[in-house]
Amino acid sequence: MSDIEIAQQAKMLPIIDLAAKKLAIPAEHLDPYGHYKAKVSLEYIDSLRDKQDGKLILVTAVSPTPAGEGKTTTTVGLGDAMNRLGKSTIMCLREPSLGPCFGMKGGAAGGGYSQVVPMEDINLHFTGDFHAIGVAHNLLSAMIDNHITHGNALDIDSRRIKWKRVVDMNDRALREITVGQGGPANGYLREDGYDIVVASEVMAILCLATSRADLKERLGRIVVAYKTDAVTPVYARDLRAHGAMAALLKEAIKPNLVQTLENNLAIIHGGPFANIAHGCNTVTATKAALKLADYTVTEAGFGADLGAEKFIDIKCRIAGLKPSAVVLVATVRALKSHGGVAKADLNNENLQALDAGFVNLERHLNNITQHYGLPCVVCINHFTFDTEAELALIKDKCAALGAKCVVSKHWAEGGSGAEELAQEVLNIVDNREPGCSFVYDDQLPLWDKIETIATKLYGAANITASVKVKAEIQQLQQQYGHFPICIAKTQMSFSTDPMAKGAPSGHTVEITEVRLANGAGFIVVIAGNMMTMPGLPKVPAAERIDITDAGVITGLF
Amino acid sequence: MSDIEIAQQAKMLPIIDLAAKKLAIPAEHLDPYGHYKAKVSLEYIDSLRDKQDGKLILVTAVSPTPAGEGKTTTTVGLGDAMNRLGKSTIMCLREPSLGPCFGMKGGAAGGGYSQVVPMEDINLHFTGDFHAIGVAHNLLSAMIDNHITHGNALDIDSRRIKWKRVVDMNDRALREITVGQGGPANGYLREDGYDIVVASEVMAILCLATSRADLKERLGRIVVAYKTDAVTPVYARDLRAHGAMAALLKEAIKPNLVQTLENNLAIIHGGPFANIAHGCNTVTATKAALKLADYTVTEAGFGADLGAEKFIDIKCRIAGLKPSAVVLVATVRALKSHGGVAKADLNNENLQALDAGFVNLERHLNNITQHYGLPCVVCINHFTFDTEAELALIKDKCAALGAKCVVSKHWAEGGSGAEELAQEVLNIVDNREPGCSFVYDDQLPLWDKIETIATKLYGAANITASVKVKAEIQQLQQQYGHFPICIAKTQMSFSTDPMAKGAPSGHTVEITEVRLANGAGFIVVIAGNMMTMPGLPKVPAAERIDITDAGVITGLF
Repeated sequence: MSDIEIAQQAKMLPIIDLAAKKLAIPAEHLDPYGHYKAKVSLEYIDSLRDKQDGKLILVTAVSPTPAGEGKTTTTVGLGDAMNRLGKSTIMCLREPSLGPCFGMKGGAAGGGYSQVVPMEDINLHFTGDFHAIGVAHNLLSAMIDNHITHGNALDIDSRRIKWKRVVDMNDRALREITVGQGGPANGYLREDGYDIVVASEVMAILCLATSRADLKERLGRIVVAYKTDAVTPVYARDLRAHGAMAALLKEAIKPNLVQTLENNLAIIHGGPFANIAHGCNTVTATKAALKLADYTVTEAGFGADLGAEKFIDIKCRIAGLKPSAVVLVATVRALKSHGGVAKADLNNENLQALDAGFVNLERHLNNITQHYGLPCVVCINHFTFDTEAELALIKDKCAALGAKCVVSKHWAEGGSGAEELAQEVLNIVDNREPGCSFVYDDQLPLWDKIETIATKLYGAANITASVKVKAEIQQLQQQYGHFPICIAKTQMSFSTDPMAKGAPSGHTVEITEVRLANGAGFIVVIAGNMMTMPGLPKVPAAERIDITDAGVITGLF
Repeated sequence: MSDIEIAQQAKMLPIIDLAAKKLAIPAEHLDPYGHYKAKVSLEYIDSLRDKQDGKLILVTAVSPTPAGEGKTTTTVGLGDAMNRLGKSTIMCLREPSLGPCFGMKGGAAGGGYSQVVPMEDINLHFTGDFHAIGVAHNLLSAMIDNHITHGNALDIDSRRIKWKRVVDMNDRALREITVGQGGPANGYLREDGYDIVVASEVMAILCLATSRADLKERLGRIVVAYKTDAVTPVYARDLRAHGAMAALLKEAIKPNLVQTLENNLAIIHGGPFANIAHGCNTVTATKAALKLADYTVTEAGFGADLGAEKFIDIKCRIAGLKPSAVVLVATVRALKSHGGVAKADLNNENLQALDAGFVNLERHLNNITQHYGLPCVVCINHFTFDTEAELALIKDKCAALGAKCVVSKHWAEGGSGAEELAQEVLNIVDNREPGCSFVYDDQLPLWDKIETIATKLYGAANITASVKVKAEIQQLQQQYGHFPICIAKTQMSFSTDPMAKGAPSGHTVEITEVRLANGAGFIVVIAGNMMTMPGLPKVPAAERIDITDAGVITGLF
């Protein structure tokens, strides 16, 4: 059965009843969206402030390959398993982006028997959060051009506008556009472009905001452009856009509650890109989860060099979160891919390639334990084609490194397939004081922060940048030197070359661009070509997605 | 108090309870969106198919002026009043567009003490219908450019693409753009543009579709472009986009239930532009309302020459609806405006101007009774500044024409202020067989249909068009000659000149463009310059819209 078919057979319970029963959330503090989705009021979350926090567990992965790792699937499976072991556990996930579902990415609500439901709703409009983010973003865009049209009192240099437009759609034709054509009634001609909604700074801001007031303040300090002197920033608050933007996010700021196939609760809230943004669900959601349950299992985007690093250095740092352990997800197929096997051959046993590809796992494992200061359990997300010899090889190699390694069958079996994983995780988190280390110190200069990440985590020899980019970093250093770094590089490799699988080292990381995300509160450092607007493939998934006359969606994988 | 302040003081009842109590809708057939909004399942509506229809009353208005007429306010006030008189009545309204709320238009959920609530939600994201329509539209846009990029097997002429992109935002910079810049990875360069979401054909289609199957069929037959032979249409179904588009509209197709300040039920569903589209709420909503209550009060966009004409000739014709009566809303201020008074002077008594401006009302009244074949009650929507002499003058002039005229104070008093209006309406609808006449016959050639509308309703002497436009109409005549006409002209005047107030006659209506809306099933005839993407004013409403730390929206009028 496909994921959507499994999901559509789920015996969902009314979410309001489930939240009351399992988490004791009163119905009046939940806004239902249909019978199986609900938003939790901020007032209720706030009322829990004196409760002790539960334990926080992060699920991350080896460097992504076309083979798929199953990070969300494992997060759900682990959470279901912990609930099976009698531990009050909530899962904290990212919201999927709608647009890519129509390309080739498929859904992002887990897989097999470890899914969150209703799967179609979660993957499509869900509770409208991304639509709200898109509109808030585009309102600011419209107000910039409108301000220039009506006399440009703020002296905005139209060549130095840093705020593009967004749409939640894979639409390559919008990457680079010219707006304002057609004469005076349509404003001034200028070059512009579209990003996908998950790349919007509004998304990053929503995910880091700690209250409505903080949200509005962050929106107000977005740098949208520079004045004609080329250096004076123009903020969203100068355009008086931030109040209306915050109003548009009135509901989006509230965490969304859904359930797993096994009727355990999951919060799904926020979903920033893990390259040009920090790739984690909202601080609001994570903090709420820590109050609502004894254990929270969360995830971060891409591999442990990107999502997990930002989870630690951006999210935990800014929000004061103290994680207790990390689960590092790998698959036999993914490690063979890192060992050089082509996608078509991944289902064949290949111990030599597996042995070679293991270095990717090893580097991530080392980063987590040495540089993030967190204990780690390796989870082999089991696939049908995995051979005993392959699984044994990984276990042996992990054991040689002194690392716990569990083969987990939650995809095929649900929570019961992940009980061993759950037990290993519980053994760790119940026996250590929460907390992690940061990869770099706040006070380190920006350049040194970037260098530290690249050399410590990526195995790079050094970093380089053009004179122009170096000057921009120097310029940002003066006012924003205390900001954390958000590195945007390919997720496929520790280097900036997506084809360099395994664990490349001694390479140079070239910084091609820096961007200030003043509202989010970090510096985006782009290494290599970053795609912030995907395209559709030759045969997009949209062609097979359909709906029956009775309203059942099909073809959404 | 402002509208939003009145709305925020409303004592709303839980919508699920209210729907059960007043309309006997079982809870399992309602999807709640928060506690005060819900969607009604199509299965439930379908289960009522053998019930007898209630009576349908249309609220329309004189030609709009900057003074405001209060059509939605009157629809709500009348419905509340009918409920006060013990008549089971439901209101059927259009969904407001979000973007214009940030410009200068203000909300569209009624006003004063005749409003639907929750007002902020209804005016902003509501239940996400417009977002879904926007995404469905833009998916098709992306699939067109994607198809060309991947080899253009359908031989689409990129200069003859008829499908633009949409956004629910007043953003003039997007009216005319160039897409596909930046080299081969971004596709092919071409001119494109954005319309506001309410101008999307997907909106018109959603509003006319009678089932999920009909929706998908209509989406599939959208003409998106012509092939390089310049005449062969390319349909959305050729791109295999219609299934995914229908899937995106899975929830949007279900009518939304809310309540008035007086806890009566209203359906708010769909909101196509009343110029380039037909300006009425969905057929699904209207048909559901007729089954759910004994009386349905609905509205149509702009004046009776546009929205009401399309309600009759497009919506009632296509859906087989039989209205029972029309309420024609006017204000003393609007009629003085039609009599030539400037906006700043509208609060001063001016009987001469009022007398002169009355011709606008008279023309609409005549059209309704003579050409739409419907009885009409004139409703003077009372303003504080109206003088007794002014009100008497209108009443006298209506009486001289044999028309009922009621001064109604629902804005200030709610339903109790509209009881006389309600009684007059009931006297009519309870004593006549439902039904209306059409302005033109299906079988009339397209050119003659346009001419009939212009001469019969607008008082025009004739219509003209360039040789090119005439040829296009001739071309459309062959395949689509049976389609109804959807005229897009200024709403401010019976002519195509927005400054020609009152009741101009003997003018020429110049047809500047024709467009095929094959999915909606009508021919759009553009007379004069039509704005399908508004702009923001110098000081947009967005600057004053805000939200408190507790989540209360302010400044949304």
